[in-house]
Amino acid sequence: MTVNRQIMIRELPKGPLQHEHFEIVEGTVPVPGPGQVLLKTLLLSQDAANRAWMQGATYRDAIGAGEVMSSGGIGEVIESNSELFQPGDKVWADIGWQEYAAVDARAISPVPDFDGPLSQAISLLGVAGKTAYHGLINVPGIHAGETLMVSAAAGSVGSIVGQIGKIKGATVIGVAGGQEKCDWVVNELGFDACLDYKDESSPLRKKVAAAAPQGIDVYFDNTGGEILQCALFAMKLKGRISCCGAVSMYNGKPQPGPMGIPGLLVTKRLRMEGFLVSDYAHLDTDAEHDLSRWAAQGDLKVIEDIIDGLESAPGGLIGLLAGENRGKRMIRVA
Amino acid sequence: MTVNRQIMIRELPKGPLQHEHFEIVEGTVPVPGPGQVLLKTLLLSQDAANRAWMQGATYRDAIGAGEVMSSGGIGEVIESNSELFQPGDKVWADIGWQEYAAVDARAISPVPDFDGPLSQAISLLGVAGKTAYHGLINVPGIHAGETLMVSAAAGSVGSIVGQIGKIKGATVIGVAGGQEKCDWVVNELGFDACLDYKDESSPLRKKVAAAAPQGIDVYFDNTGGEILQCALFAMKLKGRISCCGAVSMYNGKPQPGPMGIPGLLVTKRLRMEGFLVSDYAHLDTDAEHDLSRWAAQGDLKVIEDIIDGLESAPGGLIGLLAGENRGKRMIRVA
Repeated sequence: MTVNRQIMIRELPKGPLQHEHFEIVEGTVPVPGPGQVLLKTLLLSQDAANRAWMQGATYRDAIGAGEVMSSGGIGEVIESNSELFQPGDKVWADIGWQEYAAVDARAISPVPDFDGPLSQAISLLGVAGKTAYHGLINVPGIHAGETLMVSAAAGSVGSIVGQIGKIKGATVIGVAGGQEKCDWVVNELGFDACLDYKDESSPLRKKVAAAAPQGIDVYFDNTGGEILQCALFAMKLKGRISCCGAVSMYNGKPQPGPMGIPGLLVTKRLRMEGFLVSDYAHLDTDAEHDLSRWAAQGDLKVIEDIIDGLESAPGGLIGLLAGENRGKRMIRVA
Repeated sequence: MTVNRQIMIRELPKGPLQHEHFEIVEGTVPVPGPGQVLLKTLLLSQDAANRAWMQGATYRDAIGAGEVMSSGGIGEVIESNSELFQPGDKVWADIGWQEYAAVDARAISPVPDFDGPLSQAISLLGVAGKTAYHGLINVPGIHAGETLMVSAAAGSVGSIVGQIGKIKGATVIGVAGGQEKCDWVVNELGFDACLDYKDESSPLRKKVAAAAPQGIDVYFDNTGGEILQCALFAMKLKGRISCCGAVSMYNGKPQPGPMGIPGLLVTKRLRMEGFLVSDYAHLDTDAEHDLSRWAAQGDLKVIEDIIDGLESAPGGLIGLLAGENRGKRMIRVA
């Protein structure tokens, strides 16, 4: 245990993220300082937000060239200079793309005990599951008989949002890229329909109108861009839009927003609201309770997309931004 | 009483509204049918929404060439074929730009009794006052110590929104066009500041940052466009935006929305919500009570901009869209 493989940001991307923006180096295993713990990385979460952090300061500080690429993940405590944690504890931390990290004990949180594989602490019970839960239940709400549309429907958050919608009695329409993925969303996840935004045989706007002839009550937006534009036109009066992320906009330069802002918001009396999962931390016990119960009952399938090896992290994130994942993508480091 | 002067839409505007889009004709006084009343027009309300109705269907049907220009207004019942109204009653109706109108009794509402000139049924206690009240109090809410920004600050709604903000203990920043108008907003209406969006000596974004260095809690948007864009960048975390109208966008073709939709909504966890005054009709008694009280106490100045003569209606609306009015513009017909 002397070498610490790390993936550094060689250069911040100006356009699409590519392998050349990263380099793998052999660093040394850090020595934890006072109040710190030394973590051995087990699993890294891969999230579209990782790319957003490279755009500049968002809800967290920007990250820059010459630094280890940031990433949340689960590590095992192997040395502790804090009374808060003991060797052997499994914890969630901003661990980065590296095999070992020294982290302030106050900045990490224990992985709660639960039945099931450790990866579910990142998928079902991690940021993905809680984002889906809070962003649907506590932002717009969803009611039986309503029509819910969700973009990035095969992704880590969208796949859970749609399943919660079905559990709550809504008609659920997904939007995803590619017919095969759309078929999987319907057949495997149980959505009522899934629209292929890459299919050019008809405009997405017409597909949405055909799938939701009465309009959309709730749109859960993971993408922004063209899909948000179509949703705005398709919203019912007093519809609600939950703004979770803007994956269509992370991988390039800033673009104008959709037409009809604010005009459509006024004429249809729409509400659009952005949120971060941490805004609803006081309701995390609800999320953990309901998500675990639904999964145990077989009403909610936990879809994980785990890739082995730290060196797979850049390709994994690049692929995620291109939409190749199904469910929650992670990197198994050890 | 045989001639009914009417202003017709000669041609729907494709760009800025102009006199040539209208023509004045001498029609006949209509005979009210069963269940109808004959109204003599007293006052016509002039609203940016009149222009929006010419764009196509919004929250009401579109209006077209060859029709009398639509407008809300106050008329006096001079003949009644309905038990609901008697000659002499003053009523609010979709009366149009004409001296006489036959209207279904079920589609009109009595002007409530109150102390003060009849025009206040259109300004303080009409759509303008209620829009300001509901769109501030019941959509985003406003709290003492918060910073409120409102566009079209010298207009019928904005002038009241800002004064309510002051009554509620907020710091109030207006946005208006022209230094003279801005000075009037500060000196006459008591706003803390008013920013001239037409002044090119520095970008509006910098003016907003200087006036609200801590950022904006609530933005009341009457304009959309560039001012909304500036507000989005200046919003505090968890800020609220009340979307009342988009006057910057009525007078031309559809344009892209502001940048940062949905990105800024997510990172700042903003809420944007559109409303119509009629959504809050169940709370109109609150609005009437509070607005009357504030006006009687001298805390709220009722600003009216009344032009005489039906023939002034086209010029009045064109000027309103160019921002020349101060407070609530109306046409006194009789």
